[in-house]
Amino acid sequence: MEKIYTGKTKDVFSLDNGNVLLKFKDDCTGKDGKFDPGENSIGLTIEGIGRENLKTSIYYFELLKKAGVKTHYVSADVENATMEVLPAKVFGHGLEVICRLVATGSFIRRYCDYIADGTKLEGGYVETTFKDDAKGDPLVTKDGLVILGVMSPEMYDSMKEQTLAITKLVAEDLAKKGLELYDIKFEFGYDKNGEVILIDEIASGNMRVYKDGKIVDPMDLTAMILA
Amino acid sequence: MEKIYTGKTKDVFSLDNGNVLLKFKDDCTGKDGKFDPGENSIGLTIEGIGRENLKTSIYYFELLKKAGVKTHYVSADVENATMEVLPAKVFGHGLEVICRLVATGSFIRRYCDYIADGTKLEGGYVETTFKDDAKGDPLVTKDGLVILGVMSPEMYDSMKEQTLAITKLVAEDLAKKGLELYDIKFEFGYDKNGEVILIDEIASGNMRVYKDGKIVDPMDLTAMILA
Repeated sequence: MEKIYTGKTKDVFSLDNGNVLLKFKDDCTGKDGKFDPGENSIGLTIEGIGRENLKTSIYYFELLKKAGVKTHYVSADVENATMEVLPAKVFGHGLEVICRLVATGSFIRRYCDYIADGTKLEGGYVETTFKDDAKGDPLVTKDGLVILGVMSPEMYDSMKEQTLAITKLVAEDLAKKGLELYDIKFEFGYDKNGEVILIDEIASGNMRVYKDGKIVDPMDLTAMILA
Repeated sequence: MEKIYTGKTKDVFSLDNGNVLLKFKDDCTGKDGKFDPGENSIGLTIEGIGRENLKTSIYYFELLKKAGVKTHYVSADVENATMEVLPAKVFGHGLEVICRLVATGSFIRRYCDYIADGTKLEGGYVETTFKDDAKGDPLVTKDGLVILGVMSPEMYDSMKEQTLAITKLVAEDLAKKGLELYDIKFEFGYDKNGEVILIDEIASGNMRVYKDGKIVDPMDLTAMILA
């Protein structure tokens, strides 16, 4: 088992069977000792949070599997905080795919002349941003991704379609718990056949969820999802 | 003839025949008395520049007309610095459509991790930004324009197709003069039938043009185009 990548919240190892092992850590992104999923640097360590995030991911990856959505998820070992996944390449130097069901956050900062904070986005709206702290994670269009050689138009269409389908499944699950999904962030990759699949994790820190009109803290959200 | 809008570089009047009259002014966008087409405030007045910009617009609108591209252009009166155009509504509070043939400027500021400054963008790349000084003219995707209610997907497709065709015609014309078009900015509107047409002007200040590897100043460019 060879370590191939040291991430902020996860380490990555290659397995002899050709798959990849993700080891969830207790390090969290944040600032000045305060947990903030939107931050890009490690701000603190919370005992056991790696396992909690893994359990949330398992919960949703299993839910997607049952719904017939293929992802990189193979199996998991909660005790050791590891998840076995299919090998996949990331797009470019890392691309975030955001699905918004309610307009808020950076969408409102960009487009508040056109839409009010809290407006429902019927059917969901998908956008992609490059992971690039220094540039503030710049928005990139489908045509942009194609001309930059990051992906083909067909890959984009597949990614968008999967994003809408997965978001719907997560939102429906949260709704059963009395929670409303506002937006969620995914990462996709592609396998050796060029097939686009959901990679990384599905954790509370990647979604904005409201309960009774108030935003739910990611730590509380994890507890609610796993209850 | 009733004045319906006072612009930075043009005033707008309604005509009795249902059309609209644009009156080109000698005011230029710029800063501290220096002409800069990228600036959003009036920086100086240059005697006769309104007429020069009008002549450039006439030159290109006539060129498009001959190529069978319908625009808002009807006729012009150079002496009085006026252009008669078809009435059209702008998209949202003003939308800029940029076609890039060579990667530079804000495209590179956003995506320099993926492409080198000066790289040709084969076939051309089209993007749209909202006119919004305070927000730095935010990029908006096709899906964004649709969900914000600014235009239909069909309108976007028509606008993009026209943008690529018009850019090709302008670039071919400039190439004949030994000039290379890097990028160009347009404004589109839609008429009472929902048909999308090119509006506003086609002037040197809206394009980035190079000659022998060096950028050409908009004032010099106007002279070259009209020579």
